[in-house]
Amino acid sequence: MLSLKEASKLLSSSKERKDNGLFIVEGKKMVSEALEIPGAVSCLFLSESFSLEDNGRELFSSCKETDIDVSIVPDSSLKKVSELVTPEGVMAAVRTDEIGKTLKARSESSLSKGFPMLFLEDLQDPGNLGTIIRTAEAAGVSGIVLSKGCVDPFSPKVVRATMGSIFRTPVFKCASTEDFYDLIPKKRQEGYSFYAAALSGKRSYTDIIYGKKAAFLIGNEGNGLSERAVSACDEEMLIPMEGKAESLNAAVAAAVIMFEAKRQRGKL
Amino acid sequence: MLSLKEASKLLSSSKERKDNGLFIVEGKKMVSEALEIPGAVSCLFLSESFSLEDNGRELFSSCKETDIDVSIVPDSSLKKVSELVTPEGVMAAVRTDEIGKTLKARSESSLSKGFPMLFLEDLQDPGNLGTIIRTAEAAGVSGIVLSKGCVDPFSPKVVRATMGSIFRTPVFKCASTEDFYDLIPKKRQEGYSFYAAALSGKRSYTDIIYGKKAAFLIGNEGNGLSERAVSACDEEMLIPMEGKAESLNAAVAAAVIMFEAKRQRGKL
Repeated sequence: MLSLKEASKLLSSSKERKDNGLFIVEGKKMVSEALEIPGAVSCLFLSESFSLEDNGRELFSSCKETDIDVSIVPDSSLKKVSELVTPEGVMAAVRTDEIGKTLKARSESSLSKGFPMLFLEDLQDPGNLGTIIRTAEAAGVSGIVLSKGCVDPFSPKVVRATMGSIFRTPVFKCASTEDFYDLIPKKRQEGYSFYAAALSGKRSYTDIIYGKKAAFLIGNEGNGLSERAVSACDEEMLIPMEGKAESLNAAVAAAVIMFEAKRQRGKL
Repeated sequence: MLSLKEASKLLSSSKERKDNGLFIVEGKKMVSEALEIPGAVSCLFLSESFSLEDNGRELFSSCKETDIDVSIVPDSSLKKVSELVTPEGVMAAVRTDEIGKTLKARSESSLSKGFPMLFLEDLQDPGNLGTIIRTAEAAGVSGIVLSKGCVDPFSPKVVRATMGSIFRTPVFKCASTEDFYDLIPKKRQEGYSFYAAALSGKRSYTDIIYGKKAAFLIGNEGNGLSERAVSACDEEMLIPMEGKAESLNAAVAAAVIMFEAKRQRGKL
C-alpha cells in the first residue's frame, strides 16, 4: 500500500514513476477511466468528505470487491498533495505496464483499420503532448512513439491534458535515443511510409495520398525535426501557411495532419 | 513616459490595459514585431546590459529617431517585472488602438481573398486563445471576433502564445454580451454563412463547401457553444471522432476547421 507521501513523489518525479512503474491520476472522471482497465489501478486515495458521498461510497465498495487498496485520508492531506486547483477528493496510483499491455492489444485492431502512427521527436511541452494524445484518439491513430528526449507521458500535466485518452491511446516511449531512429527502417520493412512535417517540405500535406500504412513525424517545439529524423523519412511534407507566421504550434500541426489523414480514409 | 511599476500593472491587470489602451510585450522578437506597426509602440524599457549590446544600441538609436520614449533600467528591476523565465532585457508598451487600426486595413485585403472569419464564444484559456490567433494567421483568417466573456487577448500569456501573430491578425473583442450575437445577423446580411462547431452537428466539417464568405463559431472549453450561439448559425457542423474521446481541445478544433477551409480554397 502506497502512502500519500509516495503518491506525492510520483506526481513530482518522473524517476519515481519509472522506478515504481506507477503514475498518479486525479479526479472522478480520470479515476473512473483508469478503473475501466482491468488490473491497472494499484491503489486509491479518497478524502474523508468524498468517502461519505454516494459516489465515494460506491467507489469504496467496488474497490473492496476487487483487489484495489483504498485509503481514506483527511481532506487537508489530499489537498496538500493534489495538483488540481479544486481537488475532487480522489486520486489513484496506476500501473504503467497494465495500461501498455491493454492498449497494445487494442492497437492491433486499429492498425487493421488503416489508422496511421505518430512519431514525436523531443516534444517538451506537457500541454502539447497531452493535447496530441487526446487528438490522436479522436483522429484515429494506432499508436504514438516518443523519442527518449520527449517529456514523460505520465507526468501529471500530460495526463490531465489527455482528458482520459492516455487510457485509450497506445503511447510508447523509447528507452534510448537510438531506438527511435532504429524503429523507422524497421517499420518501413513492415510496409510503413514515413512523412516528416517540415518547413523545408515541398509537397503540401493535402497533396499526399496516405496509404493504409502511414507514419507521421512531428518535431520539437522550438527546433522542429532533426536532420536525422527528416532524412530517415520517405518524404517531407509542408503545411502551407498564409501571412508571416513562421510555424505552427506542434499540437496544431499534428492535429491538422492527423485529421487530413482521417478525411482521406473516409474517401479511400 | 510610463514607469516600470505601471508596466507591471499592465502585465497583471486587464482593467489597467483597458483603461490605458496599452499592453506589454516582452523579448527581442516580439518587440521588433511591434515596432513594425507605425505608431504602435508607446515606450520601451531596456535593461542596462541589453542597452550595451549591439542590438540594444541599435534599438536605442532607432527609437530616438522616431518618437518612442526609451528608459534604461537596472537589469534586476526589469527582471522583477518580467513574466519570462529568461527575460531578454527588453519590454515595450504597445497602443491597442494603433494595432486595431493597422490590422483593420489589412483585414479588408484578406476578406477579398475569401478568407473566413472566426467567432469565439467565452474562450477562457489564454494558451488556447493565443494558439488560435497564431493558427488563424497561418490558415488565412480575415479576423477574429471575441465575445465579452473571452479572456483578454492582450494578456501576457495570450500575447506570448500568438508568437507575434497578435500584430498581424485582426482581433476584435465585443464590448457587451449582446454585441457578439448582434454581429451574426449583421454579417449574414453582408453575405456570410455561419457554421457552429458543435458535438450535436449532423454534417461533417469536411462535407460542407465553405463559400467565399464563411464564419466559424467555436465555443468555450468546458461547455462548447451556447444554445443561443448555435441557433444563430446557419448550420451545425461536426468534427467526427474515433474512439471514446468526448471532445477536442478548442484550439485543435479551430485549427482543423480553419485548415479544411484553406484546403478547400486551394481547390475552389
